Amino acid sequence: MHRTKVRIVEDALDANNTIAHANRDDFDRAGVAVVNLMSAPGAGKTTLLERTLAQLQGTRVGVLEGDVQGSYDSDRLAAMHVPVTQLNTDPGFGGECHLDANMVRTALPALPLDELDLLVIENVGNLVCPAEFRVGEDARAMVCSVTEGEDKPLKYPLMFRTCDVVVINKLDLLPHIDFDLDKLLYNIAAVNPGVQTMLASARNGGGVSQFSDWLASVAGRVGALA
Amino acid sequence: MHRTKVRIVEDALDANNTIAHANRDDFDRAGVAVVNLMSAPGAGKTTLLERTLAQLQGTRVGVLEGDVQGSYDSDRLAAMHVPVTQLNTDPGFGGECHLDANMVRTALPALPLDELDLLVIENVGNLVCPAEFRVGEDARAMVCSVTEGEDKPLKYPLMFRTCDVVVINKLDLLPHIDFDLDKLLYNIAAVNPGVQTMLASARNGGGVSQFSDWLASVAGRVGALA
Repeated sequence: MHRTKVRIVEDALDANNTIAHANRDDFDRAGVAVVNLMSAPGAGKTTLLERTLAQLQGTRVGVLEGDVQGSYDSDRLAAMHVPVTQLNTDPGFGGECHLDANMVRTALPALPLDELDLLVIENVGNLVCPAEFRVGEDARAMVCSVTEGEDKPLKYPLMFRTCDVVVINKLDLLPHIDFDLDKLLYNIAAVNPGVQTMLASARNGGGVSQFSDWLASVAGRVGALA
Repeated sequence: MHRTKVRIVEDALDANNTIAHANRDDFDRAGVAVVNLMSAPGAGKTTLLERTLAQLQGTRVGVLEGDVQGSYDSDRLAAMHVPVTQLNTDPGFGGECHLDANMVRTALPALPLDELDLLVIENVGNLVCPAEFRVGEDARAMVCSVTEGEDKPLKYPLMFRTCDVVVINKLDLLPHIDFDLDKLLYNIAAVNPGVQTMLASARNGGGVSQFSDWLASVAGRVGALA
């Protein structure tokens, strides 16, 4: 009697993690550090990247730009004269609200990994699902705009909990909004005690060098291991 | 010979739509109009609702509050002395980034539908997936904050395309940001020609009466049919 065993993948995240490891191996072989950059829509990821790329000297950076549709951010970043690859989740991936390891894997052949020290993956603007999917990154950064209110860490804890650094952006708007910065910091610490936070105003360049230094340190750390 | 036909549900959205119809039937029986209110995180849905509920006279309103976790918005709205039911997507629904028809269905027994003219469903803050799932609503409204930039309709077209009204919020911040309102209106019209737009500043009450009138008109339209 012939018996067939059917293995059930109990969790789609298992499959994702398997592919994330494969991505990780490719990144390691190329000696490239990878940062997964996440935020809500309009928090200022792209503006922060524009300002940061202008400051990052001595680190060869590439960007993988994730969006549901269009290439608006890629077009902005291409002007910075860095390699930019656009990854759209619609069509092809059903208009997904996040990047997963497999989507990133399909984009790898388009990236000049061997010529990079650092790859920044700008995820789809969303505070929920991007946090659930590892893509093979070394570190995770998120941008949180003060215009979004102090309660976001409590309402989207997984995103804040899985990040290595939280950049609090649009500080220039503080005088014009009802916002308690200490309360936001308290809420961030409540869901991710000890996580590094940075204050920034990407629009006018404030705090950009701190983020730029952090990116360089991630690239240096990984480079030293390669 | 016995042959079994197996029907394949080709699209999870089919199942969602079947349940959305069941919700719709229950809403019709109770004569309650339903508005699905959506936005990115921190665009100001709850503040707009607080201000609106204070103005809505003669319409009995209830709120179904969707969040991944916590009851922060419910607690705020309960102070307005309207029936509020909290619906969390985590745990129970895997921390989903949106409400679907089945989640709403599980919450219906907790809602005093027969005592309401209007139910506002405040969806999870997300510009992608909430737009994909009908929950049995009569109309869809979205809040778009000027701090999010002019490009959001182009990057998240389904959300803007499936809405009956777009409330452009935080107008009070216009003098302090780099933002072109005409460009946003142009981009909204590009993905949803002729959609109704409203300018608002929920923080100081500007434009709230227009949204309040729109909600009352939806309730009146459905009430007249009941």
